[in-house]
Amino acid sequence: MMKNPVFLLAPDSFKESMTAKEVCAAMEAGIKKAIPDAVCIQVPMADGGEGTVQSLVDATGGTIYQQAVTGPLGHPVTAGYGILGDGETAVIEMASASGIHLVTKETKNPLVTTTYGTGELIKACLDKKVKQILIGIGGSATNDGGAGMAQALGAKFLDERGRMLPFGGGALGDLAEIDLGGLDPRLKEVQIFVASDVTNPLCGKNGASHVFGPQKGATKEMVALLDANLSHYAAIIKEQLGKDVAEVPGAGAAGGLGAGLMVFAGARLKSGIELVVEYTGLEQKVKDADIVLTGEGSIDFQTQFGKTPYGVAQAAKKHGKPVIAVAGYVGEQIDVLYEKGIDAIFGILPYPMALEDALQTGAANIERTCENIARLLVQAKQ
Amino acid sequence: MMKNPVFLLAPDSFKESMTAKEVCAAMEAGIKKAIPDAVCIQVPMADGGEGTVQSLVDATGGTIYQQAVTGPLGHPVTAGYGILGDGETAVIEMASASGIHLVTKETKNPLVTTTYGTGELIKACLDKKVKQILIGIGGSATNDGGAGMAQALGAKFLDERGRMLPFGGGALGDLAEIDLGGLDPRLKEVQIFVASDVTNPLCGKNGASHVFGPQKGATKEMVALLDANLSHYAAIIKEQLGKDVAEVPGAGAAGGLGAGLMVFAGARLKSGIELVVEYTGLEQKVKDADIVLTGEGSIDFQTQFGKTPYGVAQAAKKHGKPVIAVAGYVGEQIDVLYEKGIDAIFGILPYPMALEDALQTGAANIERTCENIARLLVQAKQ
Repeated sequence: MMKNPVFLLAPDSFKESMTAKEVCAAMEAGIKKAIPDAVCIQVPMADGGEGTVQSLVDATGGTIYQQAVTGPLGHPVTAGYGILGDGETAVIEMASASGIHLVTKETKNPLVTTTYGTGELIKACLDKKVKQILIGIGGSATNDGGAGMAQALGAKFLDERGRMLPFGGGALGDLAEIDLGGLDPRLKEVQIFVASDVTNPLCGKNGASHVFGPQKGATKEMVALLDANLSHYAAIIKEQLGKDVAEVPGAGAAGGLGAGLMVFAGARLKSGIELVVEYTGLEQKVKDADIVLTGEGSIDFQTQFGKTPYGVAQAAKKHGKPVIAVAGYVGEQIDVLYEKGIDAIFGILPYPMALEDALQTGAANIERTCENIARLLVQAKQ
Repeated sequence: MMKNPVFLLAPDSFKESMTAKEVCAAMEAGIKKAIPDAVCIQVPMADGGEGTVQSLVDATGGTIYQQAVTGPLGHPVTAGYGILGDGETAVIEMASASGIHLVTKETKNPLVTTTYGTGELIKACLDKKVKQILIGIGGSATNDGGAGMAQALGAKFLDERGRMLPFGGGALGDLAEIDLGGLDPRLKEVQIFVASDVTNPLCGKNGASHVFGPQKGATKEMVALLDANLSHYAAIIKEQLGKDVAEVPGAGAAGGLGAGLMVFAGARLKSGIELVVEYTGLEQKVKDADIVLTGEGSIDFQTQFGKTPYGVAQAAKKHGKPVIAVAGYVGEQIDVLYEKGIDAIFGILPYPMALEDALQTGAANIERTCENIARLLVQAKQ
């Protein structure tokens, strides 16, 4: 082993167990037990999903703000957003304001749930005078095409008698006119990036309503209505605003919030992990490292579809660095990941145990596993 | 990584899951997936406990023989013993003939259980004209001081009226005379090594009856009787045979079978793992290896007290080779093992699961873990 080896620690969170920052700390503790003079660079990561705000704030030394907003059912909820260490980039998770966890099995109803709160979060970011807003859009409770989000930012959605539509995708069938006269003009001055790996179109069999509606509480009949309404919504948008988003890949993300952000906020869709790699400056940090450690609560063949360990490996391999991953759950067909730049993958569990116990003992298990990875590296280098 | 790296695979069995030979096969499969041109030397190991016959036979290309013998309760049982690949070394596990697994909760009774069957196994080995006999003595159901074993080989234990004593430690209080006139003369021509890491004396608070009697079914009163009887037995041996074994460390192993083998068979006690290292020729094989892999079902701080991974590490470190261990259960305080020459330790479990499932999936888990260890070594060497 070279003197003062540099380890880049770039894990995602271990869901329901540890934040990415806590994973970094456990990794560093283990490595330093094996190699006291190791240099550890902590870059808590995310892939645009849950934990993205926390990780980007942690990785850049930013700040998290709390904001009272309108929840998916119209009741007030407290949501968070982050301002990164650069002071000019905001990061939002739509689920914080409009997420499925904010409804219950009894109250979930994509006919009425709204993304209004997500729009309020965007407004709060505009008030902070940021230049970019990154929006993670996983885990939505909504199917409103992002209409609620646009309403919060000043758009008006009217029926044929000029009345405001109520919240929710169930009302979009009555849409006759979209009035953008009151739309927040600051939206034109910021770049908005939607972190999304979803490529579904807005409507149809592969659209938002059919694919994601049922998990939000839509019955078969509701799916048909919601899909028809989003088609109508897209037709009105095309007719009145001259934008054709129905077939754009990703328009169907988050119940059509993807489409809404593109139309009303000029947003561009981008891979979540690529955004996080970019805004954490990961590639520059990779250059200085001898070895890269990553990880996530669960790793399997799906990791190659834009999950954090995959994105970290892509960045690391541009500079030829070894990449080692750890996970609490090592699933099926991890062999495909070896070809994607993850050189080795280790489970962290010391012995048979229940999931609940595994979630409780994550830090000790990551520490021990990383200590032994480092010990093995020392031996191999001798 | 050097071309054609040589891996020495020297694991113990994974109890209730895989034989040591099966562990070797899984290790090799994993390594070769990562490094197709790797050379793997398989040396199934054991530490004198359960699985020692199987591993030594597997490691040396020997043969296992079955033999009908007298079980601990006097009923016939089928026991196994091995002849190693050298054709002149036999290996026995006393538990095969006289083990605790051959009695039930209801029938276990150290007043009457006998080591007679173990003596019959020794006789069978003598019939094969071997030069050495290695005897593993863990897991006994007996507390007879090895008297039964000696009886099977021709010794006579008589009461003051010249009658043969019945089986079991409960009868030894009536011992008045030991007649070795009929003792098998071939015992003088073989070397017998007892694989034992037990250092208990024959009698007293740390003796066989007090320490191991209760787990064999002895009540408090029975323990007192058995201990007194073994004292009397040792006194008669000293008086009539001129051998003082009562205080010899290890005399109390296996209900005093340690003492019996020393007195009647000229046996020497030796660390189990050291015997296995010696008779597998492990040290010579270590010299040719670049890296040593070991493992056991369970590894924790107690591994340093003569378990296989410890013994393998001791042999490997004489030649400065790296030692990596894998285990299904990585327990407490493994840090102490790093100082004993085990360089890194990896658990093999991919995710939270029940013990039963872990036992069923051992091969796949060892293979995957060793593949990733090899993959990491490749990266580290580049």
